[in-house]
Amino acid sequence: MPRFVTKEKMEFLYDELKKLDLNILYITDTEAHRNVNLQYLSGHPEDATLIIDVQNRETTLIPWDYQLAQKYSEVDQIVNMADFEGLISASVETFKKVVKSEDKIGVTQSIPYSNIQTIKDVTPNVEIMWSPKKIDSLLEKLRETKSSYELSLLKKSIEISNKVVNEMEEVLTSTTKISTEMDLAVFVEGRMRQLGAMGVGFETLVASSKRSWQIHQYPRADPELSFYRNGLALIDFGVNGAGLTSDVTVPFVMGKMNKKMETIVETVKQAHDEAIEKLKTAQFLHEVADVAFGIIESAGFSMPHGLGHGIGLTVHDSPGIRQKPTHETQLKTWVETPIEEGMVITIEPGIYEKDVGGFRLENDVIITSKGPEVVTNSRPVFIDL
Amino acid sequence: MPRFVTKEKMEFLYDELKKLDLNILYITDTEAHRNVNLQYLSGHPEDATLIIDVQNRETTLIPWDYQLAQKYSEVDQIVNMADFEGLISASVETFKKVVKSEDKIGVTQSIPYSNIQTIKDVTPNVEIMWSPKKIDSLLEKLRETKSSYELSLLKKSIEISNKVVNEMEEVLTSTTKISTEMDLAVFVEGRMRQLGAMGVGFETLVASSKRSWQIHQYPRADPELSFYRNGLALIDFGVNGAGLTSDVTVPFVMGKMNKKMETIVETVKQAHDEAIEKLKTAQFLHEVADVAFGIIESAGFSMPHGLGHGIGLTVHDSPGIRQKPTHETQLKTWVETPIEEGMVITIEPGIYEKDVGGFRLENDVIITSKGPEVVTNSRPVFIDL
Repeated sequence: MPRFVTKEKMEFLYDELKKLDLNILYITDTEAHRNVNLQYLSGHPEDATLIIDVQNRETTLIPWDYQLAQKYSEVDQIVNMADFEGLISASVETFKKVVKSEDKIGVTQSIPYSNIQTIKDVTPNVEIMWSPKKIDSLLEKLRETKSSYELSLLKKSIEISNKVVNEMEEVLTSTTKISTEMDLAVFVEGRMRQLGAMGVGFETLVASSKRSWQIHQYPRADPELSFYRNGLALIDFGVNGAGLTSDVTVPFVMGKMNKKMETIVETVKQAHDEAIEKLKTAQFLHEVADVAFGIIESAGFSMPHGLGHGIGLTVHDSPGIRQKPTHETQLKTWVETPIEEGMVITIEPGIYEKDVGGFRLENDVIITSKGPEVVTNSRPVFIDL
Repeated sequence: MPRFVTKEKMEFLYDELKKLDLNILYITDTEAHRNVNLQYLSGHPEDATLIIDVQNRETTLIPWDYQLAQKYSEVDQIVNMADFEGLISASVETFKKVVKSEDKIGVTQSIPYSNIQTIKDVTPNVEIMWSPKKIDSLLEKLRETKSSYELSLLKKSIEISNKVVNEMEEVLTSTTKISTEMDLAVFVEGRMRQLGAMGVGFETLVASSKRSWQIHQYPRADPELSFYRNGLALIDFGVNGAGLTSDVTVPFVMGKMNKKMETIVETVKQAHDEAIEKLKTAQFLHEVADVAFGIIESAGFSMPHGLGHGIGLTVHDSPGIRQKPTHETQLKTWVETPIEEGMVITIEPGIYEKDVGGFRLENDVIITSKGPEVVTNSRPVFIDL
């Protein structure tokens, strides 16, 4: 398994780090602090530290599991902690060897404070970059467009996701296997894995009409709540086929619709379809958000979240699809995002009304050289009660 | 739902923080950085910041989802971000209000570096405690013994776990539903949730004899690898019944055993049983580890991991059950852990041999006032091939 970053992107990264005057980029991933950039830059799936030597353009990996690193990683050097007194000692000794006493070190924003302390203890004269947001933005930017290798992995997630959507519709309309929210989550997660997925992309969310209007369902699926209730319901799930995740939301109309439900369903469908249409001609992502928010607000509703986001190694990759902010403080850090070939994004307009339910239609779109291609098959599902 | 920490423990925490000369304890939990102490101290399940004012003995929660906080949290004040320009503004304004300009602030080790930066930007004169390991140890210590409320939640996880172990044995010996490693994982995770669990405690690990000897299986269950292979295999899973997780490993003997397998099975069983026996009389946990490691090493094997660990809100709670270290650097920070009422720990000896497979027997033990009580029902399962 090669690393995800391409050679060209890796060279670009080295160049950018050099421009930032950094000698080292330090990336770490542990059970308590996952950082997918480690896997992206090294191929190694989890639990390791990656030291990127900018001057010598060399990568050194200190994995917890040496055999796993031999199988999955693509780096210049793998450190075997068996040669040291444990992992901390391996990290410290390697760090001392690679890092020079007055180097400038880049870190990601989410690096645990304790790692900063350890670096300062081990090499007290190094300078740790005090503006790590730049590093995160740089890495997010690299991951924003997908390589042909990443797209080939994503294909597996998409194929399984589409099969699951079809099977789910069938099982909900033709059998009585599903009763609670949890039953539906179990069915979907089970089928995706039986169809060959490595795992779930994220914990499946199932919300019956009793709570689909909420902004944040907890627990994600309730083992006691019946799914068959009149109103609007939804399931939001992701398939991790072979490393990258899909992300779709299928909305349900359970039983008969009243006038308000009809308006919500129509408005969400229109916002979804016209946003995707707009992807063909727009130059920037916020123009696409404008279309969807415009439709929803004209109909007298509001949308409490962004229109969509990138997917890839994580379910919330860059870019976010939002309108241009109006608050002055937020405007200061805002940058326009051009629509680029290789992006894989979700389009997921939704409306949430306490007495009626929540209704969100979400599909995944690949931006190809020929324009946007909708690759998932989510659509509103109508269930007789 | 009340918070997990008891009143007495909360008072103890305030006292200890005062002894450390801290005015504020700052705890944060986000999607990119989970910190279960937030839930433990506030009741709020995820995505929030908790500010603990030591002098006034007051807790302030800044949640992402205000309604969720109203339902789950038990704090002195909940901040509604709708009253501010977004979550960051709500955090900053609240922080400025609660924190005085020269306060000493305690943080946990894993707090993202970016939060430290924000604190320094907002209140440049505060002092951030440069030895946060003390805070983590203190919080781990609080969570190490479980209250009767926590034990009542754990009971649900245990009951479901025991049913799943029985059903799994039946399905593996009497039907042909299970074929691959992934099939077994899907069965176990599906059944636990159908039986009423809120979710999985952690991603289920299934390792057929082809890879059960490995230290770190990736992926956790393989959708293509057949489970029915001669040799030693295992499944390691946890049930999140209602917030707290169980953790058991069921080892399998697949087909006929050779001499070496027999020795491994016998040795692991003996290490497991005698360690549990030792819990009755030992004063410290490392004495229990000594018994298990002694048995395994006398038989000519070695164990590449600790004998067990606490379980609770996380699958790797404190305490760890290890032998006294021999390296001088490790000895410096080592402290004996007395066996205390209210601890819930795993006992999980294992032996891993490349040509034979891995064999680990893991059960959960509650330390009651009457001594250790084994509450899970894992045992070696023998499958004819």
